[in-house]
Amino acid sequence: MGSIRACVVGATGYAGIEACRLVLAHPALELTMATDRKQAGERLDAVYPQMAGACDLALSLPEPDAIAAAADVAFLAVPHTASLDLTPALLERGVTVIDLSADYRLRDPKTYEAWYNTPHTSPELLSQTVYGLPELNRAGLARLAERRAAGEAVLVACPGCYPTATALAAAPALSAGVAVGDLVISDCVSGVSGAGRGATARTHYCHANESVEAYGVGSHRHTPEIEQTLTDVAGRAMSVVFTPHLAPLTRGLLATVYLEAAPDATADDVRAAYERAYADEPLVTLLPAGSMPATSSVAATARAQVGVALDDRRRRTIVASCAIDNLGKGAAAQAVQCANVVLGLPETEGLLAPAPLV
Amino acid sequence: MGSIRACVVGATGYAGIEACRLVLAHPALELTMATDRKQAGERLDAVYPQMAGACDLALSLPEPDAIAAAADVAFLAVPHTASLDLTPALLERGVTVIDLSADYRLRDPKTYEAWYNTPHTSPELLSQTVYGLPELNRAGLARLAERRAAGEAVLVACPGCYPTATALAAAPALSAGVAVGDLVISDCVSGVSGAGRGATARTHYCHANESVEAYGVGSHRHTPEIEQTLTDVAGRAMSVVFTPHLAPLTRGLLATVYLEAAPDATADDVRAAYERAYADEPLVTLLPAGSMPATSSVAATARAQVGVALDDRRRRTIVASCAIDNLGKGAAAQAVQCANVVLGLPETEGLLAPAPLV
Amino acid sequence: MGSIRACVVGATGYAGIEACRLVLAHPALELTMATDRKQAGERLDAVYPQMAGACDLALSLPEPDAIAAAADVAFLAVPHTASLDLTPALLERGVTVIDLSADYRLRDPKTYEAWYNTPHTSPELLSQTVYGLPELNRAGLARLAERRAAGEAVLVACPGCYPTATALAAAPALSAGVAVGDLVISDCVSGVSGAGRGATARTHYCHANESVEAYGVGSHRHTPEIEQTLTDVAGRAMSVVFTPHLAPLTRGLLATVYLEAAPDATADDVRAAYERAYADEPLVTLLPAGSMPATSSVAATARAQVGVALDDRRRRTIVASCAIDNLGKGAAAQAVQCANVVLGLPETEGLLAPAPLV
Amino acid sequence: MGSIRACVVGATGYAGIEACRLVLAHPALELTMATDRKQAGERLDAVYPQMAGACDLALSLPEPDAIAAAADVAFLAVPHTASLDLTPALLERGVTVIDLSADYRLRDPKTYEAWYNTPHTSPELLSQTVYGLPELNRAGLARLAERRAAGEAVLVACPGCYPTATALAAAPALSAGVAVGDLVISDCVSGVSGAGRGATARTHYCHANESVEAYGVGSHRHTPEIEQTLTDVAGRAMSVVFTPHLAPLTRGLLATVYLEAAPDATADDVRAAYERAYADEPLVTLLPAGSMPATSSVAATARAQVGVALDDRRRRTIVASCAIDNLGKGAAAQAVQCANVVLGLPETEGLLAPAPLV
Repeated sequence: MGSIRACVVGATGYAGIEACRLVLAHPALELTMATDRKQAGERLDAVYPQMAGACDLALSLPEPDAIAAAADVAFLAVPHTASLDLTPALLERGVTVIDLSADYRLRDPKTYEAWYNTPHTSPELLSQTVYGLPELNRAGLARLAERRAAGEAVLVACPGCYPTATALAAAPALSAGVAVGDLVISDCVSGVSGAGRGATARTHYCHANESVEAYGVGSHRHTPEIEQTLTDVAGRAMSVVFTPHLAPLTRGLLATVYLEAAPDATADDVRAAYERAYADEPLVTLLPAGSMPATSSVAATARAQVGVALDDRRRRTIVASCAIDNLGKGAAAQAVQCANVVLGLPETEGLLAPAPLV
Repeated sequence: MGSIRACVVGATGYAGIEACRLVLAHPALELTMATDRKQAGERLDAVYPQMAGACDLALSLPEPDAIAAAADVAFLAVPHTASLDLTPALLERGVTVIDLSADYRLRDPKTYEAWYNTPHTSPELLSQTVYGLPELNRAGLARLAERRAAGEAVLVACPGCYPTATALAAAPALSAGVAVGDLVISDCVSGVSGAGRGATARTHYCHANESVEAYGVGSHRHTPEIEQTLTDVAGRAMSVVFTPHLAPLTRGLLATVYLEAAPDATADDVRAAYERAYADEPLVTLLPAGSMPATSSVAATARAQVGVALDDRRRRTIVASCAIDNLGKGAAAQAVQCANVVLGLPETEGLLAPAPLV
Repeated sequence: MGSIRACVVGATGYAGIEACRLVLAHPALELTMATDRKQAGERLDAVYPQMAGACDLALSLPEPDAIAAAADVAFLAVPHTASLDLTPALLERGVTVIDLSADYRLRDPKTYEAWYNTPHTSPELLSQTVYGLPELNRAGLARLAERRAAGEAVLVACPGCYPTATALAAAPALSAGVAVGDLVISDCVSGVSGAGRGATARTHYCHANESVEAYGVGSHRHTPEIEQTLTDVAGRAMSVVFTPHLAPLTRGLLATVYLEAAPDATADDVRAAYERAYADEPLVTLLPAGSMPATSSVAATARAQVGVALDDRRRRTIVASCAIDNLGKGAAAQAVQCANVVLGLPETEGLLAPAPLV
Repeated sequence: MGSIRACVVGATGYAGIEACRLVLAHPALELTMATDRKQAGERLDAVYPQMAGACDLALSLPEPDAIAAAADVAFLAVPHTASLDLTPALLERGVTVIDLSADYRLRDPKTYEAWYNTPHTSPELLSQTVYGLPELNRAGLARLAERRAAGEAVLVACPGCYPTATALAAAPALSAGVAVGDLVISDCVSGVSGAGRGATARTHYCHANESVEAYGVGSHRHTPEIEQTLTDVAGRAMSVVFTPHLAPLTRGLLATVYLEAAPDATADDVRAAYERAYADEPLVTLLPAGSMPATSSVAATARAQVGVALDDRRRRTIVASCAIDNLGKGAAAQAVQCANVVLGLPETEGLLAPAPLV
């Protein structure tokens, strides 16, 4: 259909197959290549039967030359360090990279190295990379679009799922000054697809079903990414206390955040801050006062829904909740949103369909 | 986007909201009206928050004049008898009707009256109606397209979910003659959305979750519809013993059918019959020998997947299994597929996206 | 089996049927009566087929005289105000009351009236009532046991599910002084049975399935109960910011609480506080450092599991998580635990079976 | 508690941990040993946190001498061939064996070898083994009890889950003669725990959730076991066409069977056959006419529920549905039921508690 050729690297992971699905349905993109190191040679629809009739590609190895021959843009749905290996080679070959991994999200390579326990092998790229959260960083993406229009291959570092939802929940309060202090508590619940496609004791149906549990308390690698974004938004050093939970659903992510309300901020002030932030956002909906979002409302989409309340009984606290799809706005659909901007397409192209009932 | 205006009548039921979703994403259709008797006046996205940002329509009353003013085609996602009330008036006013209800599915009004306990008030329409299962009845739909092109408003009676899946599982064996006898056993499992949007003891999460149960044994109203279709295909009077079950999933329907194999039919013969039937079908996939379909592979799509095996140990029996989405190929997506044909659009327009991971 | 006769009032609600199940399996209790206003006359196993073969009682009306004739102890699994109607009459007639409703939980009737919007009609009973959270209040229950042994009918007000889990997660930190300040943030996730047996839009399978959402932010009626308990434990006025969420599981409740760590409290100090609190508790397990509890581990039991961590990166915060079953330790099983103490039985009688795999 | 010492071999599999749970709650049995080859040395509650507080055993290696020293009876919850390795050694050492594996279920070792692709190494034991389906074979178990009372170690081969449910659904019609012919179609749905504890692509939450699929059509190893039992009951050679399905629930198994009704059998005759069969069975409930069983009604129990209907429209067919818990009546609870008989205990000891709401 489309005329911009796209390759999905890591197509058999959950974010990868979602990226394939979105590219296949996108009017201006064409899926010309899908790679997987371990299953190269197999047809994609043999691995994911839902692709039968929709895609007849066989999986390839992620070789830079082959990708550059086949695609204008590459979506990297790979684990950390795999992007470090591949991104410089793709940029050199003129392929624009939309990176879903963590490798280029943190501006300070020392922070990366501390949290990921591995050296950053291309820190020189970090200054040219844009963090792909369009609602907070549209100008940065627009600059990439200009550079790309001028013939340069560019790199977008797409946010993690928890940082996306936490940022969308907390940012309006911080940027408008209705929240004070330097602490955001982010209590999050994710669907099991967030734990990846690996078959482990934790992802076994009989373990995950009918159960909720916290994990990675105080140690999850999304922590510094959340702090980087909240610090940018607040204009002061922010800390997060972040607790992810797993719940028995395939897709969906809810972040409920707690911030100290400014002494003089009224409920109306708080609400006004969120209304200003999201009034013109095509993919973020602020729910009416009294409503909080459900993850099912944004399943399989690039959309986010946000609700906010001020608990002003004694210790005045802003409670805001943001629902996204961890594979959608939290990964592949946000990657397509970023790609749209960078490629000079309408930002929401291919992303406006509402969520199906799930 | 599109230029053909569509109204969804009964937009707040599960099939209705799915029809809205599909029309909104369809490049050649435009959702101009959505109706609901009880919630008229409310915005659709107040009832279904997933519509926020995607649809700003308010619900209307299903008045024929208003529908005729707003729409070229009406999707009727209504309970039986509601279509009897509305369809003649819409046809008179030049609105093509894609009826998802049971009211015009059975050619013999006496059968309708016997199973639905209500008189059929417009039996004269039955002879002009086409049963909308394109894989079995594409020629009939094409005739409607011609009549419509000539200026006539036409009526499609879309099949029920169980009849669709049973027919797609059993038809190749019957039409090719590799099955004999006059009995098909159809053992089906449906997701809970099949029980409708009404909040009842049976649809309560804590009843439906973690449980499987049969219901309506020997009395389900889809029985005569299944027999009508199987009889058409086989060219002889066929009976069905039909057992629907509920399982804890929102969407999805699996029909596993059992037919007596012809004495001389080999496994290869059986397989060849299914390959012939579905080789060129854009929305039906025959899985490789040894594979059986999963409902998740077709979630939220117009697609069907079919697997077939011959159990030739002693009592030689063809076992075929068909997976559809009860709200998709079993209701709204098949309705759009039929509408596409009747409206002169490509049959699969707006229907080719693969299923998301669910 | 048993010799102490028990009546479950409100037997068809989810807490009620769980109470019936526990009484039926209890070696020292006998289920002699089960009541329901609306379904009186029906057999319990007609309403709940899982009772078939285990209980042949028919449901009765909750008449005080009849209850007093049939039972020594009554479990009141009723909505608020229904206990106000019944409890005084039962106590007068010599029936010990284990009240699962909210009616006698709050010591200050004005707080009750403010949050429940209804007058408290028997405030004189509040001073003699004991709040039935044995881990925090075992002495109070023991005093009731003495009074009962002396011939008096006594009243236990069993805690709500969210207050139970929040208290078990937060109390050790507060009572040991490793947490400071007056604020506890309690972010909770509950299974759908917590929303009750009523068939509503919210409890419909297709709404609750595959979704997580917050509700009742800043307004949930468990708020003052949580604050009463935390204030008792801390010895200073405590506030809670409390956000309940619904997740797609039938049973289970997880409370994750956040408290400001004392400036000099080390991770070892925090852990020691929890070890001291729960070392000898038969029904509460403190998980090893680094582990957090899963609700499935305590499904259908009176047990709780607790995990605790100190996030000491910048803003030093104690994060503790407590898993219970909302119908078990959060309702009926805790009621049986209280009844055991009050009736002079071993506290864990009938309550020691581990959770089944769910 | 109890005085008969029990060892569970293979305690970390799903049937094994369920056996542990039941033994722990059993008033006459004591869990003295639990084994696992791979995790020997670890505490059971480290592997299954729900055992915390209920069991402080560490896992052992399954050495016959150690088992004989620790236990009077051994429950073997092991894969096929593992029982062949262990059972003869245990019997020699005087340990009564309740075998949950397939190794001694089939009377003809050639059938075993054909379906399990492995030689049967102790066929001499088959003639002394009793197939442990008490409702069909109580006399056989009673004979074992006598032999054991006389000092002999005995062997029970417990049925598989699908054979149990199929037999309980079909047997009354066959033994009473209201069904004719030699074919039973058994269409079954199982929870995911039936696929075992191994973490595979198929048992991944995101594969199993929201999906139903058939598997093993025509080739499942329970096929000859079903035929052996139905042949015993009918007194003539019976065939089964058997289709197992996986559905998104942890526990539960539903068998819906189809049999040709005898020409003169009325609906009353059919019903009477089932009433006679189950009127006095303590663990099997025949539901009222018009009702079909739900798997949730028997979750985590030794119970079965059965419903039956006669579809007498044209091709007169008996449709019967039996719900069990695949880990309960389909495995561990039935094993305890058999052990009770063989050990001279009341058959239902420790097995009468009703199912919790799941």
